[in-house]
Amino acid sequence: MTKRITIQTRGQGLVEMTSEVAGAVRESGLVDGLCTVMVQHTSASLTIQENADPSARRDLEVWLSRLVSENDSLYTHTSEGPDDMPSHIKAALTSTTLSIPIVDGRLGLGTWQGIYLWEHRRRGSARSCLVHVGG
Amino acid sequence: MTKRITIQTRGQGLVEMTSEVAGAVRESGLVDGLCTVMVQHTSASLTIQENADPSARRDLEVWLSRLVSENDSLYTHTSEGPDDMPSHIKAALTSTTLSIPIVDGRLGLGTWQGIYLWEHRRRGSARSCLVHVGG
Amino acid sequence: MTKRITIQTRGQGLVEMTSEVAGAVRESGLVDGLCTVMVQHTSASLTIQENADPSARRDLEVWLSRLVSENDSLYTHTSEGPDDMPSHIKAALTSTTLSIPIVDGRLGLGTWQGIYLWEHRRRGSARSCLVHVGG
Repeated sequence: MTKRITIQTRGQGLVEMTSEVAGAVRESGLVDGLCTVMVQHTSASLTIQENADPSARRDLEVWLSRLVSENDSLYTHTSEGPDDMPSHIKAALTSTTLSIPIVDGRLGLGTWQGIYLWEHRRRGSARSCLVHVGG
Repeated sequence: MTKRITIQTRGQGLVEMTSEVAGAVRESGLVDGLCTVMVQHTSASLTIQENADPSARRDLEVWLSRLVSENDSLYTHTSEGPDDMPSHIKAALTSTTLSIPIVDGRLGLGTWQGIYLWEHRRRGSARSCLVHVGG
Repeated sequence: MTKRITIQTRGQGLVEMTSEVAGAVRESGLVDGLCTVMVQHTSASLTIQENADPSARRDLEVWLSRLVSENDSLYTHTSEGPDDMPSHIKAALTSTTLSIPIVDGRLGLGTWQGIYLWEHRRRGSARSCLVHVGG
């Protein structure tokens, strides 16, 4: 089964979506299987990161925004705003799809792992993701 | 089922392969499921990117080639040419496999998303990909 | 089925795990299907890379460690050591999950492809991975 979930973002950075994905796994009733998440946008992405200390997620955002800076003179794709081309590059460097084994009816994440939607645009929006749960 | 598809490249950059992947999904007849694409090379990769404006793809290529430059003095793996080690690094920073849910018999891509093979060698070639479609 | 495998690392760099993953595929007895690998840590990651020349893997490690340096003044997440925040960034830039089609009962890897666990901490440890094999 595939379920669509929407994650509301409020500007650049990581938004945890582990519980929404876990909910789709629970609904499926599958005990062993595979859960795949895909974000349906090219200016946001997915990552599995540490769910303990928020400072790690803030540093991730700041580091990546320094690497992929706005107003780089090489950009020709500028019509959608200064944060648009950096968003596409950041999405290419991180992940658009993630697949997580289901173990004993639950997401097989490590103790410190959470699933995050990574918003790359300055202005947050409602981001659509697909969650597929199968054998 | 798994189908092998070959994508011809003509030098560095992104080549759209959405219709080839969609064809494998159609052939499978599956209405709900998961489609996984893998590139069988380590000097090319995969990405889901904007399918509207070609300038975004050109900027992606130029940006990544500036980040991962040829003739970097740290390279020791140089026997296969100046574009070989940068190709492996670019492949590591992007994706070798992608998994896309199938919704109503079609790839569950967002409106502006396309699937691209990203060639990292200067000389294009015939790139082999596997497309798996399953439940 | 999902199998847990443990990969012992001995410091930063790539450790091949192709044979462990292939073993899980063989045990499953599946002829056609999909094999998904996930690392259950946020300071190690996965990559599919060239299995021929070890110099390519050494250059990958050196290049990425130069890009994501320790002791960067922007880090605020420093309580777990100077190699911790770089590890999270390196994991975000590479892969936490990989999905490989199974063809004729074997991993559908290209001739020169191997599956690697990429250790990002200075001190190696026993890294837990899940391998799911399904239809």
